[in-house]
Amino acid sequence: MTTRRFPVAVLSTLAFLVALVATAPADEGMYLYSAPPLKALQERYGFEPDGKWFEHLQKSSVRFPGGSGSFVSPAGLVMTNQHVGRGALSKLATKERNLVRDGFLAKTPADELKCHDMELVVLQGIEDVTDKVQAAVKPDMSPAEAEKARRAAMNTLEKKASDDKAGIRADVVTLYQGGQYHLYTYKKYTDVRLVFAPQAEAAHFGGDPDNFEFPRYCLDVCFFRVYEDGKPAQVVYHLSWSQAGAKEDDLVFVSGHPGRTSRLNTVGHLELFRDANYPLFLNLMRRREVTFKSWADRDEENARRAQADLLRVQNSRKLLVGMVAGLQDPAVLEKKRADEKALRAAVEKDADLKKQYGDAWEQVEESVKAQRKLYHPYQLFEGAGRGLGAPWAFNSELFSIARTLVRHADEKEKPNAERLREYRESNLPSLKQLLFSEAPIYEDFETLKLADSLSLLAEVAGGDAEPVKAVLAGKSPQARAAELVKGTKLRDVAARKALFDGGKQAVEESDDPMIRLARLIDGPSRDMRKQYEEKVEEPQTQAYAKISKAIFALKGKDQYPDATFTLRLAFGTVKGYEENGRKVGPFTTLGGAFAHAAEHGHREPFVLPKRFLDRKEKIDARTPYNFICTADIIGGNSGSPVVNRKGEVVGLIFDGNIQSLPADFAYTDTQARAVAVDARGIVEALRKVYDAPELAKELTGKK
Amino acid sequence: MTTRRFPVAVLSTLAFLVALVATAPADEGMYLYSAPPLKALQERYGFEPDGKWFEHLQKSSVRFPGGSGSFVSPAGLVMTNQHVGRGALSKLATKERNLVRDGFLAKTPADELKCHDMELVVLQGIEDVTDKVQAAVKPDMSPAEAEKARRAAMNTLEKKASDDKAGIRADVVTLYQGGQYHLYTYKKYTDVRLVFAPQAEAAHFGGDPDNFEFPRYCLDVCFFRVYEDGKPAQVVYHLSWSQAGAKEDDLVFVSGHPGRTSRLNTVGHLELFRDANYPLFLNLMRRREVTFKSWADRDEENARRAQADLLRVQNSRKLLVGMVAGLQDPAVLEKKRADEKALRAAVEKDADLKKQYGDAWEQVEESVKAQRKLYHPYQLFEGAGRGLGAPWAFNSELFSIARTLVRHADEKEKPNAERLREYRESNLPSLKQLLFSEAPIYEDFETLKLADSLSLLAEVAGGDAEPVKAVLAGKSPQARAAELVKGTKLRDVAARKALFDGGKQAVEESDDPMIRLARLIDGPSRDMRKQYEEKVEEPQTQAYAKISKAIFALKGKDQYPDATFTLRLAFGTVKGYEENGRKVGPFTTLGGAFAHAAEHGHREPFVLPKRFLDRKEKIDARTPYNFICTADIIGGNSGSPVVNRKGEVVGLIFDGNIQSLPADFAYTDTQARAVAVDARGIVEALRKVYDAPELAKELTGKK
Repeated sequence: MTTRRFPVAVLSTLAFLVALVATAPADEGMYLYSAPPLKALQERYGFEPDGKWFEHLQKSSVRFPGGSGSFVSPAGLVMTNQHVGRGALSKLATKERNLVRDGFLAKTPADELKCHDMELVVLQGIEDVTDKVQAAVKPDMSPAEAEKARRAAMNTLEKKASDDKAGIRADVVTLYQGGQYHLYTYKKYTDVRLVFAPQAEAAHFGGDPDNFEFPRYCLDVCFFRVYEDGKPAQVVYHLSWSQAGAKEDDLVFVSGHPGRTSRLNTVGHLELFRDANYPLFLNLMRRREVTFKSWADRDEENARRAQADLLRVQNSRKLLVGMVAGLQDPAVLEKKRADEKALRAAVEKDADLKKQYGDAWEQVEESVKAQRKLYHPYQLFEGAGRGLGAPWAFNSELFSIARTLVRHADEKEKPNAERLREYRESNLPSLKQLLFSEAPIYEDFETLKLADSLSLLAEVAGGDAEPVKAVLAGKSPQARAAELVKGTKLRDVAARKALFDGGKQAVEESDDPMIRLARLIDGPSRDMRKQYEEKVEEPQTQAYAKISKAIFALKGKDQYPDATFTLRLAFGTVKGYEENGRKVGPFTTLGGAFAHAAEHGHREPFVLPKRFLDRKEKIDARTPYNFICTADIIGGNSGSPVVNRKGEVVGLIFDGNIQSLPADFAYTDTQARAVAVDARGIVEALRKVYDAPELAKELTGKK
Repeated sequence: MTTRRFPVAVLSTLAFLVALVATAPADEGMYLYSAPPLKALQERYGFEPDGKWFEHLQKSSVRFPGGSGSFVSPAGLVMTNQHVGRGALSKLATKERNLVRDGFLAKTPADELKCHDMELVVLQGIEDVTDKVQAAVKPDMSPAEAEKARRAAMNTLEKKASDDKAGIRADVVTLYQGGQYHLYTYKKYTDVRLVFAPQAEAAHFGGDPDNFEFPRYCLDVCFFRVYEDGKPAQVVYHLSWSQAGAKEDDLVFVSGHPGRTSRLNTVGHLELFRDANYPLFLNLMRRREVTFKSWADRDEENARRAQADLLRVQNSRKLLVGMVAGLQDPAVLEKKRADEKALRAAVEKDADLKKQYGDAWEQVEESVKAQRKLYHPYQLFEGAGRGLGAPWAFNSELFSIARTLVRHADEKEKPNAERLREYRESNLPSLKQLLFSEAPIYEDFETLKLADSLSLLAEVAGGDAEPVKAVLAGKSPQARAAELVKGTKLRDVAARKALFDGGKQAVEESDDPMIRLARLIDGPSRDMRKQYEEKVEEPQTQAYAKISKAIFALKGKDQYPDATFTLRLAFGTVKGYEENGRKVGPFTTLGGAFAHAAEHGHREPFVLPKRFLDRKEKIDARTPYNFICTADIIGGNSGSPVVNRKGEVVGLIFDGNIQSLPADFAYTDTQARAVAVDARGIVEALRKVYDAPELAKELTGKK
């Protein structure tokens, strides 16, 4: 980057800009391991870790599907949250073995339960491929051509990086919304076994209500072990366990995979989130919460079958309520508006910046207009449907499987460079692991979910709209869902394999009703996706790339990018806060959990497992149980280890307090806090409550 | 009505029409007491009750706010459902006395608890005032003028009928959506005292889940007593208690106040309900359910404060899910479509009918287009806001009080004939009873409700819309709600009285923040209401009046009108049904309740009160507990007595099964059933569970 010289007027604007934009509270940031916050750590904490320190933490950090974790023993032991492991627990459960509710402990390695379809990855290398990716896009390309060219470049880079390398996953990561592209290579573990999970009552003690009343008392922890060649994997990088634990005002680090933030977004874009996208998604979550809850309440087996989905939905609902509330607070957007105004003014004043990046905001605005129209139909038919997720109108695992088979058959006939991202060569092993999972799919719960989502489709599109009629085939959503779920053979993994291997012909000849439905809507769905990519995503990629570059130019390159569910490092201080004049201390204790249960009359969700109550006398009541810190986290960070300056585990992130919910678009540290299980609480519970001294020893090295 | 002669073509069309429209299953109908179903009863059941039979039942029937009831002793004892009484129970409750959860029994008359603001009415007389009302509307009037003229006629008729008659309420009822107008006069009771309510666990045993799995086991009963001059009222008309109870295949009658049906509605109008109105309302109910539930779960006192609202919302949600599902079933609307086609064809074929009524369907269609646009904003600002209900965007009792005070101040300066309906002279006593109620209003729950609804407003209108900014006054919905609720003086009844009596000047000078908010939005809200009345309600009134008249002309006058929350008589047979090949018998027993609790492991909501379990041995397990019949009921019928041919109480309606939920737009008797508490179960529970032999004796005349 060339040095710039600014006239005085720009400098004073810049000072204003810095005051507004750059007064990020010092603990803000989800930093790339390739650009760690050396300066901030040095200036603020006098801490100067070397490259090895970072490498060790990076390679001890594990990515779970939807969450984070870490190696905590040389024998491949991985720690995460119970709620991150919940999907896997649920898939391993049976009517007789309710692992989510009742927990699990493998007494010996032979008892460890192999997960159906879990893939864990560990970041090994980072390569900046920005130039390669951006070079593929020529200035005169249409959005459609640009998207295609960029996709080809990314698919190809990934294939090259992972080809012939078993156990390696390669992803080109889009950073700064398009400002940079990095090629991440991961070591992959696919034989993952369950070692320990506590009862749901312990993991989520205090449940939803306690979110409004920190302190909390949750043992939201879960241990898995990765295997290679049928034996526990020997891992070089793993975290040691802190003996002393953390104390108030300690500097701590969080290494994990924050899922998504929108901090770079323009105010107009955030307003769209506030007024349309988030409320729509929130309505969907509330709808599912009510639908699942009333079904789950009918009997215990229903409750077991729905529990993972229900808890996930409740968690999303809680997050979205907080996010909408944050955006509806005029003070929050006013701050953003002032920042944006200052940034744009600074760009306008510099002829060069103005020429290169000055039109970015209008470009976003245009794309937001398109997004306002397309977001809902896109989500209904496509949206989360990438990979094996389900679009809003077809909330069914069997449908997702059907769509994956239908699309795979089409995509595999194309060259790798031209394929939809999720069908690129380098992603197929992961896709197959999910597609051929033997995890149970329950006919009744599937029917409930599909019926409710088909009903949503009919509501949104209108019961007489042609696509709705075609999808429902003259039946009510309920009857159609029942017919599809009952009629499909896709619950049988062999049937999936036959269609996967049989390719286009097999899929076209299949009379499986779910395959037929997926084929019926595949054309319109792909069109919808194409439109969304061309009118929303591609212009936003290009525009935000410009905005990022403008910021780099004005403020230097040490800005962290928005979260992308890739490995990041955050740091912060163990610290309480004040709320309505009341001091909330940084730590809770195990003894406090008992008191809290008693205060609430041991009513749901303040019921401690019987095992806790039985062993109350044995437990050291003073043991720290949960703590809070100012580190900058968000969903996806769940399961991240919290480490001290020595890189030792002092805790395990599992949540944020309600004040942290608007972290999507703004970090604050007045009240917002990350919430962690204390390492000392984990060990005390393993020893005294769960009779798991071996596991405690594996963590701490001590009996 | 003149006799008509039809050409042969019309007759054959008519035969077709009769086949489609008039093959109403014989037990269909919510009949007016002024036009009872004499013919159907005679033909189908050989039953020929005389005028006295009907008069006795009519004058023993009591209307509750939102529900039904009946006199069951000469000393003014009134029976209804616990869930109909729940609002009153909740208002009488305190932190120490949770009447909804724990129930209540007055050991002596002196222990009976006086309700805060309950008004019960008993229908005394019916006068057909169709000509008077319709004469007020001249053919050349605009919709606005027509609405105003009709309102003036109605307000005036009501004033005349109730003037100087203390304890009399008079309402002009719009029947057949405008086809007829009847003047109903009621005797009014305003001193109403609580005698008995069971625990919520008994009243709603099986809760939501059991709706999907009839049989059910609910003691959804509640007794009140009306007082006059401080003494139990002596009532001439009251129902006797059946000794024998009902048995399978018995003819039974339900006398109560079905709230609303839409059976006359055109298909286009129902499509609007299906695609817009119902889903919007359903989303609102789900939103509130989730908001209230997560708040109620925080602690026991929250649960008590929110319980009445939460249960009401859950009940509405259940109903709406069923209604949307019904309308989304193509078979249901196909039938309606065919009926409508046949009716329109018959009208088209008769020059006279065509001239008078032929444009009615297009008129509805036009109004539906307007309704599609106006429904949501109307509900947000006005809708349920008539009387003391709260509009969607201001879900707060304090706001409703403020609006009532603001509007009353304006309306009372106008002549009675010109006032908004709820401020007409004849309605003021009822309005004042609610307005000056000493029932508690909880600051925290009010804030929760208002914040959530302000947030809804911001979502729907957009956070930057001027009205939203004006309402929020630069604050977040949460902060603004807290400020309004904390700042208003309207929790104090004396403050309300001062503003009520002080009139326009007092209201205009008031600096109460809630009054100011109500004033701020009153102009736009009134405009919205005016638009809705002119573009939606008035054209629909006129169009449906035409359609009704066409039906009368083609099919005779013995058609029952859609439900209007006025007294109706339904009849039916005690009868089981088949579901998925399984027979569901008509009766459950008290013993079955114990078995059902055990089957579900005594988990919520299958927990019987301890009092039941303690007395299990004393209770006769064979006692019939709940039963079902084919009578045509809907929401509002809750609390209706079920009587036999002798007019004796055999049961108490409390719900419909899920198959009955689409009763809004179509009656069926294949599976749809009304669900009642059996009279024998009530008495057995009073005697054996509740130690209330005096009450049992008052009902049955026996110890």
